[in-house]
Amino acid sequence: MPENRKSLQEEFEPLFNPRAVAVIGATNNWSKWGFSTWNSLLDGYKGKVYPVNNRDKEVLGHRAYSRVIDIPEDEPVDLAVFVIPAEGVPSVMEDCVQKGVRAAVIISAGFAETGEEGKKLQDEVVRIARKGPLRFIGGNCMGFWSATANLKAFMFPLLVMDGPLAMVSQGGNIGGSVVSAGYTRGIGFRSYVSCGCTADIQVEDYIEYFGDDPKIEVILAYIEGVNDGTRFTEKVSRVSAKKPVIALKPGKTEAATTAITSHSGALAGSSTLYDSAFKKAGIMRVNTPEELLDTGMGFVTQPLPRGKKIAIISPGGSYGVLTADTCASMGLEVIKLSDETIAEFDKILPPRWSHGNPVDPAGDRNFIAYMQAPDLLLKLPEVDSLIYMGFTNFSGWATRFSGINKDITKIYQELIQELTKLIPGKEALEDPRTDESWMEELTKKLVESFFAVFGTTDSTDLEAFSQKLTSIFKNKKVGPKLKEQFLRTAKSFHNGTIGENMNPFGPVLEALMEGLLITWIKTYDKPVITTSFMEMSTVSKLGYHAYPTPERAATVLTKMMEYREYLEQKGIVRIQGPSPP
Amino acid sequence: MPENRKSLQEEFEPLFNPRAVAVIGATNNWSKWGFSTWNSLLDGYKGKVYPVNNRDKEVLGHRAYSRVIDIPEDEPVDLAVFVIPAEGVPSVMEDCVQKGVRAAVIISAGFAETGEEGKKLQDEVVRIARKGPLRFIGGNCMGFWSATANLKAFMFPLLVMDGPLAMVSQGGNIGGSVVSAGYTRGIGFRSYVSCGCTADIQVEDYIEYFGDDPKIEVILAYIEGVNDGTRFTEKVSRVSAKKPVIALKPGKTEAATTAITSHSGALAGSSTLYDSAFKKAGIMRVNTPEELLDTGMGFVTQPLPRGKKIAIISPGGSYGVLTADTCASMGLEVIKLSDETIAEFDKILPPRWSHGNPVDPAGDRNFIAYMQAPDLLLKLPEVDSLIYMGFTNFSGWATRFSGINKDITKIYQELIQELTKLIPGKEALEDPRTDESWMEELTKKLVESFFAVFGTTDSTDLEAFSQKLTSIFKNKKVGPKLKEQFLRTAKSFHNGTIGENMNPFGPVLEALMEGLLITWIKTYDKPVITTSFMEMSTVSKLGYHAYPTPERAATVLTKMMEYREYLEQKGIVRIQGPSPP
Repeated sequence: MPENRKSLQEEFEPLFNPRAVAVIGATNNWSKWGFSTWNSLLDGYKGKVYPVNNRDKEVLGHRAYSRVIDIPEDEPVDLAVFVIPAEGVPSVMEDCVQKGVRAAVIISAGFAETGEEGKKLQDEVVRIARKGPLRFIGGNCMGFWSATANLKAFMFPLLVMDGPLAMVSQGGNIGGSVVSAGYTRGIGFRSYVSCGCTADIQVEDYIEYFGDDPKIEVILAYIEGVNDGTRFTEKVSRVSAKKPVIALKPGKTEAATTAITSHSGALAGSSTLYDSAFKKAGIMRVNTPEELLDTGMGFVTQPLPRGKKIAIISPGGSYGVLTADTCASMGLEVIKLSDETIAEFDKILPPRWSHGNPVDPAGDRNFIAYMQAPDLLLKLPEVDSLIYMGFTNFSGWATRFSGINKDITKIYQELIQELTKLIPGKEALEDPRTDESWMEELTKKLVESFFAVFGTTDSTDLEAFSQKLTSIFKNKKVGPKLKEQFLRTAKSFHNGTIGENMNPFGPVLEALMEGLLITWIKTYDKPVITTSFMEMSTVSKLGYHAYPTPERAATVLTKMMEYREYLEQKGIVRIQGPSPP
Repeated sequence: MPENRKSLQEEFEPLFNPRAVAVIGATNNWSKWGFSTWNSLLDGYKGKVYPVNNRDKEVLGHRAYSRVIDIPEDEPVDLAVFVIPAEGVPSVMEDCVQKGVRAAVIISAGFAETGEEGKKLQDEVVRIARKGPLRFIGGNCMGFWSATANLKAFMFPLLVMDGPLAMVSQGGNIGGSVVSAGYTRGIGFRSYVSCGCTADIQVEDYIEYFGDDPKIEVILAYIEGVNDGTRFTEKVSRVSAKKPVIALKPGKTEAATTAITSHSGALAGSSTLYDSAFKKAGIMRVNTPEELLDTGMGFVTQPLPRGKKIAIISPGGSYGVLTADTCASMGLEVIKLSDETIAEFDKILPPRWSHGNPVDPAGDRNFIAYMQAPDLLLKLPEVDSLIYMGFTNFSGWATRFSGINKDITKIYQELIQELTKLIPGKEALEDPRTDESWMEELTKKLVESFFAVFGTTDSTDLEAFSQKLTSIFKNKKVGPKLKEQFLRTAKSFHNGTIGENMNPFGPVLEALMEGLLITWIKTYDKPVITTSFMEMSTVSKLGYHAYPTPERAATVLTKMMEYREYLEQKGIVRIQGPSPP
């Protein structure tokens, strides 16, 4: 490893924010990765691009160069993307050094992971790059994404968006899945690096770099094996004092160790050693890609819990039982409710409610009471966090109930028709001067309509609840996002894309419910994690994902506890970091 | 418990296959469960129905009776559904006994689960019912579903379909979630009982009843606590010798034990005791609702593995690593490949492939080789089962790759246009005499088109692969389902519901891939479990679900191993049971 003479931010600037990029192996042949990589680059990146191909004169309308050094001298290239067979990499690397290219990503496979010969080839590539110096990602990787440059130097069309996370992954499939799942959930990445066999830049270098970027709030890593444990622990410790670092590290079994060698060429090392190294470095270790993203989102959206005391609200007794069992098994403390709290719930829930934690209204049809319940628990000093089985799919349930018989279906459709009348005309929507009061009006009517399907008709309750919801519009952080969702829905309505749908208002209702969740988090400065019924995980509108199982929700809380304890042990007072809206 | 004087099948006939049903508490008031329960009954059930309501003269067009005994004497009622407050149940139960009603489901809550008073009320209800005798489900339950009578005596619109599973659940939310998730995945239930506090009929009675129904292949249970451990173990042992019984039992922690008491009123008992009772009774214990359904589906769709030796195929190195780690952690043996097998893979995969188990083609673009890989492993005597990260969303990936640039998009769209020309006209589709050769023709062209997007163009390979796929049409069990899927897609095309979609052929391509999977299972009589990338679980077309995580896939295999070992220990040779097509 060369000693850094300049800061990592400066050194990596040509990599993450290049002025110009050459793709070695860009091709017109759509059956090659060089084709999809070239197209991936063109999708968003605004700097200069050069296809390098020693056969074709032109690649998809761009003049091709047979060698990197054929690119005119007055046109500097910062980054080279290699998508050619491994054996061709050294000579092109020589060209890159000669041309003054300062960074590369070597997607090509066939290095250390294939054995002795491959290792030699890899060493040769590193030796040449050092002459530049040219720092590179890979080889045997899938490429990377940098939001700063809107740069997708990636093997195939990657689903990714900008956001507060960053990820480095020694596995392209795991990394790609996490990033794409984030996209689907509505959470983005400032950067994602598929780092491959880490011949030059090491896992800890990326983490250090992400640590210095103030736009990155949480760092995720998939690690098969690091090359220098001491260096790794030292560098990451400095980062984890500033922001959470979460890592998925397989290799508990010999079967995995063997697979790792033929995959990334890494030495998997002892799982126990990694455990203690991670502990020392303040890294939260998780076991699955799901947990990696879940926990990352948890840190971004929730404050750290003050302790392990938890309250649970569930509309179903059995889900309450499972959630309590899971939380307690994971070391969280399912608190007992005081007589005062029980008396408070007695006022809003039917006599058959569970009279304990988990709070289960036992089939109460008054869903407004269910949505008042969190306040009664979160205000208690003995509650550190809440798992709430929320109605993330409230509109879906309303639709299902409205299908009970044709009379109800008709009434429901009429209600929806009434609601559509509150949407401003197409022109008005485009006009920024349009008064936004229609959104509040729509919210009120929405609440009345949807809750009517379940049977909540008490007008005082409904009004109070509507007021709570409409107050979300005034929240500085959430309000604008919520308004966007309303506008989006309204526009879809005019475009006819949801016109035929029986319930076009689902997305805004879901967003409002999510807004309510955010209000709880903000008001009490405590984590509120929502869960959904089995396999009913829903896409969040404002970035707050409902976890589809109690295990996944509880895991997030335990990891956040772990981080808090780490910071406390180290005596670190966290000044800056993820904060709820 | 009364001794059974007649067989359980006879005794439960009025319950699961009633000639007439009365709903106590059926109402016109849509904010009451009596409304949704009444409508749920009307949705499918063809026998006579009677609303019983002491206020309304009529419920949704049906003449209402103020008491059960007011129903004309010559109109017998087999089943009564109670949706009234608990305190009203005893007197109506008296009426039911007088009327000669022989079965009931008590949805009403407020019995033993609420404490001493509730327990007294419950005992009173049992005492009255015994006089009939009238056997009943509940109280404090959500109702039940019986495919035999197309009967949904349920609190709300339940998503359920007929099929080879059966379930009894002491939690309505867990049970409902499992059944609905099954519906979404395309797997059905012969019966589902939300058994509540099991005041009369016990968990083991349902299991015994399901055990005797030849149409039920696998039994699922969610158990909070059984009343008589010895009786339970005895009865279930007899069933598990015939078919698999899988149970989710929470209560490992005190938090859960407390929650169970206030939920079902059951004594949770020691988790270790349950472990040994389950072992004795041949019950496979699982930890989550997902595992319950996953395992149930596994038993229905796969043969029992002969041993714990496993092979893994993954298109991604890191997913291979995770899968190997998971399998080995769970006690499966990730085998080493012989030199002969490695040599065989060398012939079809690029030099950079993993050269071991998991088999990872390391970014090979020839997906036909990937689909030939299972045969090379399944034919080996040292392989007992296979986890295959299959292309359950193959068409999705093709669409994504086709979006790489506008030229490819255009070519792809033209290919799709070509394909649509192979669909017969609307009238021809309705005509049963229409030759089905269009399906095979479409399959061939589909393969060419979709694989072309990834770059597989070798015509010999493509033809051999197409032939393999078209041979699935001739499979007696799978062929008809596959044809149905083709017909459905063709009809949707004519109805315009998928006309605007860029890729209307996804469903048939997925069905073909699933057919291929079934062919592997059938040919080698070994389990082949498919997995998908993170959160990309797809709805199966022919009943074979792709598990979204390696943990879930491996769990299914270990539970199937456990069952095989149980049968072997008991010296039971399984004559009848789930068999692959």
